Amino acid sequence: MDQDDYEYCIPVGCYGAPGSYSSEAMMTYFKNQPITVTYYDRFEEEIQAVAAEEIQYGVIPIENSSTGSITEVYDLIRRNNCFIVGEQCIKIEHHLLALPGTRLEDIRTVYSHPQGFAQCRDFFRKHTDWVQCPYFSTSQSAERVQREGNSTAAAVANSMAAELYGLQILVPHIYTSSFNYTRFFIIAPKMNQADHRDKITLVLTTKHEPGALYHVLGHFFYNGMNMTHLESRPMEGHPFEYFFHIDVMGSLIDPGVVKTLDDLARNCTYFKILGNYPSDQGGAAHEIRTYRSEIRTQCVAADP
Amino acid sequence: MDQDDYEYCIPVGCYGAPGSYSSEAMMTYFKNQPITVTYYDRFEEEIQAVAAEEIQYGVIPIENSSTGSITEVYDLIRRNNCFIVGEQCIKIEHHLLALPGTRLEDIRTVYSHPQGFAQCRDFFRKHTDWVQCPYFSTSQSAERVQREGNSTAAAVANSMAAELYGLQILVPHIYTSSFNYTRFFIIAPKMNQADHRDKITLVLTTKHEPGALYHVLGHFFYNGMNMTHLESRPMEGHPFEYFFHIDVMGSLIDPGVVKTLDDLARNCTYFKILGNYPSDQGGAAHEIRTYRSEIRTQCVAADP
Repeated sequence: MDQDDYEYCIPVGCYGAPGSYSSEAMMTYFKNQPITVTYYDRFEEEIQAVAAEEIQYGVIPIENSSTGSITEVYDLIRRNNCFIVGEQCIKIEHHLLALPGTRLEDIRTVYSHPQGFAQCRDFFRKHTDWVQCPYFSTSQSAERVQREGNSTAAAVANSMAAELYGLQILVPHIYTSSFNYTRFFIIAPKMNQADHRDKITLVLTTKHEPGALYHVLGHFFYNGMNMTHLESRPMEGHPFEYFFHIDVMGSLIDPGVVKTLDDLARNCTYFKILGNYPSDQGGAAHEIRTYRSEIRTQCVAADP
Repeated sequence: MDQDDYEYCIPVGCYGAPGSYSSEAMMTYFKNQPITVTYYDRFEEEIQAVAAEEIQYGVIPIENSSTGSITEVYDLIRRNNCFIVGEQCIKIEHHLLALPGTRLEDIRTVYSHPQGFAQCRDFFRKHTDWVQCPYFSTSQSAERVQREGNSTAAAVANSMAAELYGLQILVPHIYTSSFNYTRFFIIAPKMNQADHRDKITLVLTTKHEPGALYHVLGHFFYNGMNMTHLESRPMEGHPFEYFFHIDVMGSLIDPGVVKTLDDLARNCTYFKILGNYPSDQGGAAHEIRTYRSEIRTQCVAADP
């Protein structure tokens, strides 16, 4: 690669290691764009690198459809000076990986991110004699099994990690739910100004009075802004009071949306727009929409 | 103790180990009552023991005022057949514990529950060369330091654990926020029927239509039921749809409350009352109320 080519590469940060679900989200989001990648072991380091403009974008998991939000990321984005400029959904398909030649009956120890264990709950109930060792990420767990060369160890990770670290898929598809997705945020030091941005993520605190959150949601409802997610996070130093992180459909290009948010902000004790970006309309997001419309006619299933 | 005395002991389950914050919550809640205690390493084991009536009560952390909800517990209570019959708030005061004679400059490794590290974030920023090892609980981290007899290791835990495991407090008060509390649920196989129960915890899912959550909160607001907490948890197998776990003030003895909840339930796709119990009015809860009224006149502080 010559110097000219190099100058066109976008510096992107990614959580975890090569072969991680984050790297899969990154490759999907930046498909056909030249990027140079820096991997981060810790959410905080990646978010601070974005805020300091050391990298142009960061890819970071925010929410899994089975185990819920990565709440630490909510807190870090709120505290650091960066914005959400995109989102990417990825289907999660965990397998049990081990060194080639390892037999299932030899396994004593399994490495994974804690969410990996949680998402394969039913599988691990059948193997209560294995020691579950929480590790930084699924991909790093696979790398560790390769590095240590220990044939009594296994990792919970995806097929990309198996290929990358030369491991065999000892037991495929060990996840509890077949409809398991992770949503990633693409973060940047500045707001997205694209014409087609249709989703807003914001954070607010309400007055401490009855009905405060009810009235907040009324601003969205009566102005036709559909809320797709609400997450409460503690206000450190203010016991049992909360930040509300909210996703609503809307664009800051629309004067009606801007007026709604201005009115709302005046009724909040804290209000910050964390990003306005195009919602994910890609493969995994399409799969979720199709699946939803299929089950819409059925009753809501009981909690599995 | 003779046989008669023994028969009056209430079998209580507790998360963690002797010296844990959970055991502090248990001792506060069951003060002056004779109890026999079983400790559990895993939330799931404790909750299943309550559901199976192996123990009469379980004490389990649900929410910390700095780091947020223990979301796994929400999911387990919803999935298992048990009820919330009480709550207990405890002030969290972490110290750095080590073997007697250990010097700060010798420390290489620190054990703690991940929330212990998170709640002492600022302290650990000054010690980035230490390896942070996540462990089951703060109390078990203290026990591990004692058991291994390793004078390069330390634990993040409370003073009760220091005393119990013969450790010295190497650095006291290493927590980031002085107003850090954990709320515990007391769970049982049956609903609390006490006259003075004034708080209801319930879980519901809404129709998948705009404004659905707004209309749910309207039921509470227009019927004078103050909502104190809202937590969204994923519906496994239904990507990016949510259970809402809600705490509201009210008693099922009040016919108006029962009517409100009946009306609400008819408008939800899933609805379950997880408990109706007396809210904590004790020392820590009183401290929080006093602190809140003191800062009410000030502006809401920016996020630390």
